[in-house]
Amino acid sequence: MEIKIFKDVMIKNNAIGEDNRKLFNEQKVLVLNLTSSPGAGKTTLIESTLKLISNKVKAAVIEGDLYTSRDAERLEVFKIPLVQINTEGGCHLDARQIHHSIKELSLNELDILFIENVGNLVCPAEFDLGEHKRVLLYSVTEGDDKPAKYLNMFQAADLILINKIELAELCRIDLEYVEKEIHRINPTAEILRITALDERTLEDWIQWLNKNVQMRERPDESRN
Amino acid sequence: MEIKIFKDVMIKNNAIGEDNRKLFNEQKVLVLNLTSSPGAGKTTLIESTLKLISNKVKAAVIEGDLYTSRDAERLEVFKIPLVQINTEGGCHLDARQIHHSIKELSLNELDILFIENVGNLVCPAEFDLGEHKRVLLYSVTEGDDKPAKYLNMFQAADLILINKIELAELCRIDLEYVEKEIHRINPTAEILRITALDERTLEDWIQWLNKNVQMRERPDESRN
Repeated sequence: MEIKIFKDVMIKNNAIGEDNRKLFNEQKVLVLNLTSSPGAGKTTLIESTLKLISNKVKAAVIEGDLYTSRDAERLEVFKIPLVQINTEGGCHLDARQIHHSIKELSLNELDILFIENVGNLVCPAEFDLGEHKRVLLYSVTEGDDKPAKYLNMFQAADLILINKIELAELCRIDLEYVEKEIHRINPTAEILRITALDERTLEDWIQWLNKNVQMRERPDESRN
Repeated sequence: MEIKIFKDVMIKNNAIGEDNRKLFNEQKVLVLNLTSSPGAGKTTLIESTLKLISNKVKAAVIEGDLYTSRDAERLEVFKIPLVQINTEGGCHLDARQIHHSIKELSLNELDILFIENVGNLVCPAEFDLGEHKRVLLYSVTEGDDKPAKYLNMFQAADLILINKIELAELCRIDLEYVEKEIHRINPTAEILRITALDERTLEDWIQWLNKNVQMRERPDESRN
């Protein structure tokens, strides 16, 4: 019974996710679903990224949190469209919540929409929001065993950003080994090493973003 | 419908949790439910703790992980009873899993049973396993905004161990502020500052353990 209900929920979610994606494609907006453990640096990455790109591309952010609007408040300084979703204890965002949130955005005016998921390395894996790419932040402070232990999240990611690399040595983390572990679990994932706080480490990430924004605007070259 | 099913699941879980606790009380074994984000240091804390106490008290560990038995393997050196639960993608341990696991343990020979929950700062909050105390590890690398954002987990904890305090300055964390935030969310929580890797920081934690083990063995003075 529980399993049947869960399957029904997933089928419904994924259908709405597909609808969302169609809409995003029509409006030529690149949509990214940012996932991670709590405190791995998603909001900090969005802050640093907006500093670097917000004068060139039009961005908006949907913030997912159990409680509080602290992350959205941190982004108010950029004067971009922001929508806060509070899940009230819920452990992930779902496609229906995104479907309602995007009614508050003028998608046709946007180049890129960041969706910051709830900090949780388990449950968001199963829920397609309609994004084009899933971006997983993996902080080195969490240890090197997370890809094998949180398999579904690492397998569901298109791009994995290894974050807080300035702490790798202190945390006894071998970045080469971490990258091998990620590719053992997900051979096609792209991987970049970053320190979200340090804009000098974000060059490849910004390049990745620009490439993917351009693919949305010329959909013939796009995968979706 | 979904909500009703969820409520049924919780009622059933909590009833089994109560049964587990009765059994633990009869056998005079202290049971701790260790929760945290992924990579906050639960297994490392158990390792350091066993080094300090395993010649004085009889301990066992139930390890909860989505996949792999890596955490249990790390503890094999201590030659204590170990049970691995793999949730196969499930986001928390539940009372029924614990009920089955403890059949593999001789509870009457134990002083203390550590249950290491799945690394997840959301879902384990709702599931009583039958423990006497809930111990939450909170790594300073996760930032200072987690108590307010992950309210249910912080409210459900009896003891909160602020971990990796040697990284606080590097992570720009004010420990006084963190403690105030925790007490704003959960005024009765006990708080200790530790570095799970450094046994010299664990004195108060070991004292807390000993006090609680003794309360189990002299149940007249116990709260449960």
